[in-house]
Amino acid sequence: MNFIVTILGSGAALPTQIRMPSSQYINCNNRHFLIDCAEGTQVQLRKYKIHFQKISRIFISHLHGDHYFGLVGLLSSLNLLGREKEIHIHGPEELEEILMTQLHLGGSKLSYTIHFHALYFKEKEKIFEDDVLEVYSFPLKHKIPTCGFLIQEKTKLLKLDPIQLKKKNIRLEQYKDLQNGKDIELENGDICRYQEVTKPQIAPMSYAYCSDTKKDLKIVDFVKGSTVLYHEATFLKKEKSLAKATMHSTTQDAAEIALLSDVKCLYVGHLSSRYTSDEEHLKELQGVFENSRVAYDGLVIDLFKE
Amino acid sequence: MNFIVTILGSGAALPTQIRMPSSQYINCNNRHFLIDCAEGTQVQLRKYKIHFQKISRIFISHLHGDHYFGLVGLLSSLNLLGREKEIHIHGPEELEEILMTQLHLGGSKLSYTIHFHALYFKEKEKIFEDDVLEVYSFPLKHKIPTCGFLIQEKTKLLKLDPIQLKKKNIRLEQYKDLQNGKDIELENGDICRYQEVTKPQIAPMSYAYCSDTKKDLKIVDFVKGSTVLYHEATFLKKEKSLAKATMHSTTQDAAEIALLSDVKCLYVGHLSSRYTSDEEHLKELQGVFENSRVAYDGLVIDLFKE
Repeated sequence: MNFIVTILGSGAALPTQIRMPSSQYINCNNRHFLIDCAEGTQVQLRKYKIHFQKISRIFISHLHGDHYFGLVGLLSSLNLLGREKEIHIHGPEELEEILMTQLHLGGSKLSYTIHFHALYFKEKEKIFEDDVLEVYSFPLKHKIPTCGFLIQEKTKLLKLDPIQLKKKNIRLEQYKDLQNGKDIELENGDICRYQEVTKPQIAPMSYAYCSDTKKDLKIVDFVKGSTVLYHEATFLKKEKSLAKATMHSTTQDAAEIALLSDVKCLYVGHLSSRYTSDEEHLKELQGVFENSRVAYDGLVIDLFKE
Repeated sequence: MNFIVTILGSGAALPTQIRMPSSQYINCNNRHFLIDCAEGTQVQLRKYKIHFQKISRIFISHLHGDHYFGLVGLLSSLNLLGREKEIHIHGPEELEEILMTQLHLGGSKLSYTIHFHALYFKEKEKIFEDDVLEVYSFPLKHKIPTCGFLIQEKTKLLKLDPIQLKKKNIRLEQYKDLQNGKDIELENGDICRYQEVTKPQIAPMSYAYCSDTKKDLKIVDFVKGSTVLYHEATFLKKEKSLAKATMHSTTQDAAEIALLSDVKCLYVGHLSSRYTSDEEHLKELQGVFENSRVAYDGLVIDLFKE
């Protein structure tokens, strides 16, 4: 089991030598996703030694360039590298034509298939599910339609205790019920409570991504109880009016959302290029929500260690 | 007087940690141009401390992503930084819509005007001229319509010799003719030869850019006598068949074009990401055309020192 987030870009719209714009790589139980894909993402992936042919799904939050201008380049490189495996892209519906027009003008036929899934910006929606995880999109409040994403593990099967199973002579076909927390009837007619033959499982982890958005209390419902919340904090408290004008959040806004959402840990990103240090950010964040950190390019968040 | 080329990206389609894809910044007598604008160009401009608001014209050779995927991001950043000065873009006509669609979807009104000029891919064409320089586009032979560019200084005015001017009592309104190499009549009816009162001027410099193209002898006519020729050499001689299949050039092709064109100096770029050293490239190049070099990211070429 693993649930790891690698921050490829922790900066806002203007790329700097220190912070590239938004992009994150997620490895959740060996499902490989990308959230947002700013200009330069493919170079960041190489820099942090991420094998990008493994990526199966890409989620694009909105159509501001600092969240998707690197996507067409990444798709082109996957093609040049001879990818055959299909890829899924979840994003605003206009994105499909932008990508296809550019790929078509380049004149080469893609070696793999792109499946495009348009996002819905009105309410929380399940956009992907397999046997180990679920992905949801949910609306944020920004200048153009924007989604946040929630990746959450499914409830895990309880671990069986082989010694107890043998002792009680439990049949193979009864294992599944026990792992799902159901009691079973033994051959002698006795009831075996699942707790007698299973060990507790680690609670499912979840990762919530909110960038870009003004402070919005509705987010609390969408991300409540997440293991890690990544929330934008483009500005410090003193730039509150600028945050309002641009529909972004301050450190205080992000920390308040984390507190209300009862998440385990908050990371903030999408920091404006005007800041050269993050000391003040950390101070402001931890004044509201203690388990807060500031993301940086190359940061690896291991949800099992949070 | 200055004529400086900064190589922002010397690699082929796949960006690496060492070589980014095609982009170059030109400062010719304080006219500031960009040729091609691959993904990551704005970060390269920052890295090499180039003040990118100065750029007045951008020339895009063709619609393969490694030559233009960074343009929309650069234009967005110029906007975020509050640019007011207009900008001119010369490129394939389809580029205009690609750019405008993406900028429009971002939802913000541009703070400056973009003037778009469609390239003509059939023959050599003058695409810009002012009082000190001319820019030409000329067709290359690649998989999709592609142009090379030639930036050349205009013939410079001869330098006047103030001591001789005074001695011969020459009138102010006669200076221009002398500077243009014309003889004049003095007040006493004598003829004054321009050589008597002027000093020789440095010959006009020119810079030719050819990327991407298969070897094409027609290029010789377009770039003949240039001070510096930048020619692609995606492959080494041993990858000749790959060069043919992808309509690219080898080191030998580039060196032969330089030799036939009688240029002063050849730089090759657009090197495939498969090469980790350029030693073999240099050996192959200099075996054909001695004054050859291999470009690298961050290289500054001063045409006055070549």
